[in-house]
Amino acid sequence: MSRRFWNDLTVQLEPYTPGEQPQLNNLLKLNTNESPYPPSERVMEALRGLSGDDLLRYPDPGSVALREAVAEFHGIAPDCIFAGNGSDEVLSHVFQGLLKQQRELLFPDISYSFYPVWCQLHSVQYRQVPLRSDFSIAAEDYDPAAAAVIFPNPNAPTGLITELSTIREFLEAAPNRLVVVDEAYIDFGGESAIALLPEYDNLLVVQTLSKSRALAGLRIGLAFGNPELIEGLVRIKDSFNSYPIGVAAQRAAAEAYRDREYFEQCCARVVATRDDLSQSLKTMGFEVLPSAANFLFIRHETVSGKAIFDALRAEGVIVRRWDKPRIEDYLRVSVGTAEQCLRLREVVQGILQKALE
Amino acid sequence: MSRRFWNDLTVQLEPYTPGEQPQLNNLLKLNTNESPYPPSERVMEALRGLSGDDLLRYPDPGSVALREAVAEFHGIAPDCIFAGNGSDEVLSHVFQGLLKQQRELLFPDISYSFYPVWCQLHSVQYRQVPLRSDFSIAAEDYDPAAAAVIFPNPNAPTGLITELSTIREFLEAAPNRLVVVDEAYIDFGGESAIALLPEYDNLLVVQTLSKSRALAGLRIGLAFGNPELIEGLVRIKDSFNSYPIGVAAQRAAAEAYRDREYFEQCCARVVATRDDLSQSLKTMGFEVLPSAANFLFIRHETVSGKAIFDALRAEGVIVRRWDKPRIEDYLRVSVGTAEQCLRLREVVQGILQKALE
Repeated sequence: MSRRFWNDLTVQLEPYTPGEQPQLNNLLKLNTNESPYPPSERVMEALRGLSGDDLLRYPDPGSVALREAVAEFHGIAPDCIFAGNGSDEVLSHVFQGLLKQQRELLFPDISYSFYPVWCQLHSVQYRQVPLRSDFSIAAEDYDPAAAAVIFPNPNAPTGLITELSTIREFLEAAPNRLVVVDEAYIDFGGESAIALLPEYDNLLVVQTLSKSRALAGLRIGLAFGNPELIEGLVRIKDSFNSYPIGVAAQRAAAEAYRDREYFEQCCARVVATRDDLSQSLKTMGFEVLPSAANFLFIRHETVSGKAIFDALRAEGVIVRRWDKPRIEDYLRVSVGTAEQCLRLREVVQGILQKALE
Repeated sequence: MSRRFWNDLTVQLEPYTPGEQPQLNNLLKLNTNESPYPPSERVMEALRGLSGDDLLRYPDPGSVALREAVAEFHGIAPDCIFAGNGSDEVLSHVFQGLLKQQRELLFPDISYSFYPVWCQLHSVQYRQVPLRSDFSIAAEDYDPAAAAVIFPNPNAPTGLITELSTIREFLEAAPNRLVVVDEAYIDFGGESAIALLPEYDNLLVVQTLSKSRALAGLRIGLAFGNPELIEGLVRIKDSFNSYPIGVAAQRAAAEAYRDREYFEQCCARVVATRDDLSQSLKTMGFEVLPSAANFLFIRHETVSGKAIFDALRAEGVIVRRWDKPRIEDYLRVSVGTAEQCLRLREVVQGILQKALE
């Protein structure tokens, strides 16, 4: 019927499937890498302080106060910062305004599975470059003649870090090739490429407040780059939605950046819990990739990923798994609180005992 | 420098310019048609009830509770409703997924000035159809062979209503032509085309919570249509940003719909104040178009629109004006509270006295 009004794009799209958000109680949700700790008390105060007047007015279209707080945190200028409605919106604008070119875009074959969807949505030609056999990213594998390269760092879903020295190799191999580093998980042990911005104008860094700053519920993403790159993104944004970030999200996000101490404490706790969990999973016979993120990418030496995934689900523990070549036996497990990780370990132990009986 | 990474689209875009949001005190801001009254107390309670746990988790990607509240309000099914991050985001998805066709899109020459921008962003071919000399929209002026038609109802910036009987003419003239009715201002005296949805599958209605529901600050927009049309929009949304609406906005918006009484009171107050203001502007020598919206479109019989606009600004009163043929002498003035309208009248009176001395 009304399907006759869909255009070819709408018909052909294969939309991204996010990690499920089941509305069940007593579920241990370790599938979308959210923070196990709540946002800063300063964030909660900012929300409680919202007035009716704040809500009835359009928000600041340029998110100036938020960008200033982020600039202050990183010691950079606000005009190097773009803010959007979650890093997915920011990335979509990057694909539409910067990565769609005559020459192709390159990204790893095992990577954020939204990238090919944005390519489809915005007709971006791309080629996937296989990760090395150890799942690492090597600059020399990426054609210097490409229009651009994008990869998550740490990579998702592997959790592996690409060192800044490798990112320098990417940047120096081809000054006319744009390098987009998608740092959703950088705060759990990686070094941000923001430090390289003064040296390279072919670098764009994307971050999110949904992981280390515990604000997945409010949708805020950022891009960092040379002011001219940022201006390009602003042109796309202002041709799409003048006011992408509401006043609640702008105020909350600014406070999250102003509370550096709490942020650092939460990240340190996640890192400590992650390293404990990693140790105990290894003793249970798991291969655990070295993670610089707030999740672990694990594979058991004898029991299949699918079997463990299904058994966990039956016990009310949700993790993430991809039915894709090379990684079908791996599970991606978000690092929860110490208590949540304890429950996970106990459930996994039970599953393995049963499976290996 | 980095501008070399902009693609042709980014270079050529002429972004939409929203009404200014000056951060000055004591300004009378009547330029962006916000509600003069705060949102329902139930909305404020919902925001105060947000917990750290709500914020750290991703929000419901499908905005189910919100869509159920809206469905209940209108007495329709939730699968006829699409929710997005402001009606501008909803409209952008409509342009990208439904209005981009082999045949052209039609809209009035005097209309929401974001339409041509979305056409540019998404490469939609379009033709503008002149309003009649009295600024009315006539169905017979629109080619039945076009792919689609879009217009605001009431129209912006004129405030004129197009009656449902005319919208029926649009719908019946061409069952294979999609008709999108953009009802940002429908709650101030118009009749919503939502009532026609059971009869026509070539109809899509777009609404916003930024005007009559006083939530411009939180960014929520809706589309209403046949479930297959809605499914098309969901495909675009899920290929762009899985979680477009944060938890604060979803909860607040649902409460705004649940408080029907307060909503109706606020709309009635705006209508009463608008009609008072309209009367007194007429006695000052203004032509005032009959408005079904929360703004008036006015032109003085002797003093130019530019002169009044500039003089108002000098007095701290911001209204909106377009430097465009046919409407350059008109001003669009949002209807404020009774007190705000009084201040406006006094300032205007002073300006006219000076100008006509």
